[in-house]
Amino acid sequence: MLPRTYDEQICSVARALEVVGERWTMLVIRDAFRGKTRFAQFERSVGAPKKVLADRLERLVEEGVLERRLYQERPERYEYLLTKKGRSLWRVLAQLIFWGDEHYPAEGGRPQLLKHIGCGGRADARFHCMKCGAELERHDIELVPGPGLKAAVAGLGAV
Amino acid sequence: MLPRTYDEQICSVARALEVVGERWTMLVIRDAFRGKTRFAQFERSVGAPKKVLADRLERLVEEGVLERRLYQERPERYEYLLTKKGRSLWRVLAQLIFWGDEHYPAEGGRPQLLKHIGCGGRADARFHCMKCGAELERHDIELVPGPGLKAAVAGLGAV
Repeated sequence: MLPRTYDEQICSVARALEVVGERWTMLVIRDAFRGKTRFAQFERSVGAPKKVLADRLERLVEEGVLERRLYQERPERYEYLLTKKGRSLWRVLAQLIFWGDEHYPAEGGRPQLLKHIGCGGRADARFHCMKCGAELERHDIELVPGPGLKAAVAGLGAV
Repeated sequence: MLPRTYDEQICSVARALEVVGERWTMLVIRDAFRGKTRFAQFERSVGAPKKVLADRLERLVEEGVLERRLYQERPERYEYLLTKKGRSLWRVLAQLIFWGDEHYPAEGGRPQLLKHIGCGGRADARFHCMKCGAELERHDIELVPGPGLKAAVAGLGAV
């Protein structure tokens, strides 16, 4: 009989999830794709307790998903940037967005859009541009606020 | 200033992760895609404590990702099957596999393969068959043991 953790050791999903399989972690990665780099930015947006967020950032640096870089000397301040390995998570993130959009639609439309930088069209689930048909790679795509996010911001403004 | 949980509420990623953003949960979904349906099967393969596994299964049923079905009356026994919503997670799972394969390669090759049922070719990151070029949908694909899993099984056998 195989040991109980057998599947764990040799499964790509399990190994991937050891690194990114935690809600706060994927939210940090989402924010890094949106261009956030600093602890305070992640803290405000992700909403995780400081200690948890610090742990997650440290783990992502250890795993080579994020790179830690000094941006201020006195006092010492660091920022966190996606590495090549981190950027290659864009397809996982994109599929999570598509699944969330389909099954948990936000009032007012999609909260965020995966846009083709070249022509402004949206990416489909096969990472083609829905407008011009181009095969999109990571550097062709940006994650931008969609109508759902704008509607929510407007709604908060009216309160 | 926006509330701290603002992004949480209207982000597709955050909403998706509220349901599947936990390591055990995605491993349960992986196993469901491999055809596992019963508590004991998930328990053996996922390796989560009984209570945690029971919680995760219940949550996935509540969210409509899994469907609970009576398969034995005395004693009452249930099995868990992917719903349409659950099956639509296949693209997220596939991208996790691709990322894991790339960055955490197993000795002996890929532990699992996303295969085109029609011709046996592997799926690429755009969900095309690498052999015949077909555009693959969920029903065209199966998750099967790859050389990495076979090598590991052989290795255990030799101990």
